[in-house]
Amino acid sequence: MAIRLAIIGYGNLGKGVEIAIKKADDVTLAGIFTRRSVEEISPVTKGASVYPLALAEAMSDNIDVAILCGGSATDLPVQTPHFAQFFNVVDSFDNHSMINEHFAKVDTVAEKSGKIAVISSGWDPGLFSINRMISDAILPDGNTYTFWGEGLSQGHSDAVRRVEGVKFGAQYTIPIKSALARVRSGENPTLSTKERHLRRCFVVAKEGADKNAIAEKIKNMPNYFADYDTEVHFITEDEFEKEHRRMNHGGFVIRSGRTGVNNENSQIIEFSLKLESNPEFTASMLVACARAAFRLNSAGQSGGRTVYDLPLGLLSPHDASEIRRRFL
Amino acid sequence: MAIRLAIIGYGNLGKGVEIAIKKADDVTLAGIFTRRSVEEISPVTKGASVYPLALAEAMSDNIDVAILCGGSATDLPVQTPHFAQFFNVVDSFDNHSMINEHFAKVDTVAEKSGKIAVISSGWDPGLFSINRMISDAILPDGNTYTFWGEGLSQGHSDAVRRVEGVKFGAQYTIPIKSALARVRSGENPTLSTKERHLRRCFVVAKEGADKNAIAEKIKNMPNYFADYDTEVHFITEDEFEKEHRRMNHGGFVIRSGRTGVNNENSQIIEFSLKLESNPEFTASMLVACARAAFRLNSAGQSGGRTVYDLPLGLLSPHDASEIRRRFL
Repeated sequence: MAIRLAIIGYGNLGKGVEIAIKKADDVTLAGIFTRRSVEEISPVTKGASVYPLALAEAMSDNIDVAILCGGSATDLPVQTPHFAQFFNVVDSFDNHSMINEHFAKVDTVAEKSGKIAVISSGWDPGLFSINRMISDAILPDGNTYTFWGEGLSQGHSDAVRRVEGVKFGAQYTIPIKSALARVRSGENPTLSTKERHLRRCFVVAKEGADKNAIAEKIKNMPNYFADYDTEVHFITEDEFEKEHRRMNHGGFVIRSGRTGVNNENSQIIEFSLKLESNPEFTASMLVACARAAFRLNSAGQSGGRTVYDLPLGLLSPHDASEIRRRFL
Repeated sequence: MAIRLAIIGYGNLGKGVEIAIKKADDVTLAGIFTRRSVEEISPVTKGASVYPLALAEAMSDNIDVAILCGGSATDLPVQTPHFAQFFNVVDSFDNHSMINEHFAKVDTVAEKSGKIAVISSGWDPGLFSINRMISDAILPDGNTYTFWGEGLSQGHSDAVRRVEGVKFGAQYTIPIKSALARVRSGENPTLSTKERHLRRCFVVAKEGADKNAIAEKIKNMPNYFADYDTEVHFITEDEFEKEHRRMNHGGFVIRSGRTGVNNENSQIIEFSLKLESNPEFTASMLVACARAAFRLNSAGQSGGRTVYDLPLGLLSPHDASEIRRRFL
């Protein structure tokens, strides 16, 4: 029987989960739950059921795992512990500095309810976290470098749009090629975030606005841009609509370590993603983790989990013997 | 207390394990066990104890995990099930087509002895296997490509050396750049092993040997070279000693998948290794897996395991809260 997944919150991530469920044979959509009015929601799947969020708890008999698709700032800190009372849950909580606090809260609830709660999955945190951890475990003598992008940054795009005279704005975080090359060479350089990334802005100016003033204001904005190598490109509204409404993203995790009697050997581990849809990819990882959550719970386990606690084979739709044969 | 690791078999891999143990604070060398005479062995570690292999079983009280460093052809099929009777074991069994059979044998013994036996770890099988499996689980609609190299191939080097007139020979497997580029672009091409790799040979000819004849013989050798794009370069003995006694290797696992309502988004996951010492890197992964084997067994578990069965956090020397804080 297929694993019944509920989607809680139907923005880009929720829609991505719905699309990922359609791609996998062993999971099925139990329903979409929304805070908005049900009529506002247009699911991708014909005939998909949409319910008011308040009904979710009462439907717990029909839900094996709920995938929480709200935001990390205000939704997930409340929703994940709340819903872990009623079903297995998976979230993509990405406020890195608060993860242990979020984990403790969720773990307590899930232990008590007898459910599994997987937090902070996706690609960062998620796949990038796996690679940072395992490469440190294998090569204890070395440095790990995370590069983000090329990809749209929501927070920095918002900052651009707040500048006077800006009609539309998009900001891309872009790994600096020469920094990537130095890391890949095994040089083990010290590189701050701003030495690893440049910021490229595409701006549609309002009619009559002073473009030089806009560019200067962006480039000198403290915290966001002042410390970075920042490019500002002015484009037309047409161009903006055509080229800058996408949600591509990606990045690199590189471990550069040394082994040998005299540390003579360089060893480089590199993991990278090149994503045309950030939310759809994150959603695909959440669905794989939902499969693991369901299986752990079916085996009698409960409590909080992160990607570090999951035997990775449980993420696969295939059984243990088949994954050994096909992938090992 | 540090985890006590025994090394069984002291070739390049065994020496790599010894070096990896020195790099990690939470593991210690319990002893090196050899089939050769004890006097023949020169450990890297001053004062390291070397014992005849026959003594290993009797020393099981002093060994938490034994890392089996023999070959997959004849040693491991016998040694892994044998030693799993006495202690937790880790091996790098890499005969892909026999893995399920090897697993079944080892699992039966380890269940009975109450020990954990991790088989087929290292980088391929091992890290590459993790990436092939998890990227298939996340992106069910797509293709996975494994490229090996650039690296020395033992079997193909042996074949070169068997050709008449060859004094020394080394064969490197090299990913074809244009094939890599096509995969990375999201094109999803169909590519056989020979369409992904070229074979580059460096040969020292015996005095008076016919170099053209040697090159022709190599290039036309069935199974090994005839189907491939093969280069043969003649070099001096000096050059050979200086440049071709290394054990570098590596490769790429790339998943190219698609998501989206109409499959409109390309999603690329890439994992790669660039290793200056293949055996030292493999050994480093085996030591991390030994840590996991010890912890699982300490928690009361027993039986056969592969990388798919290990919660990855157990590979780290750091505790769960610290890895969440530092790496998630």
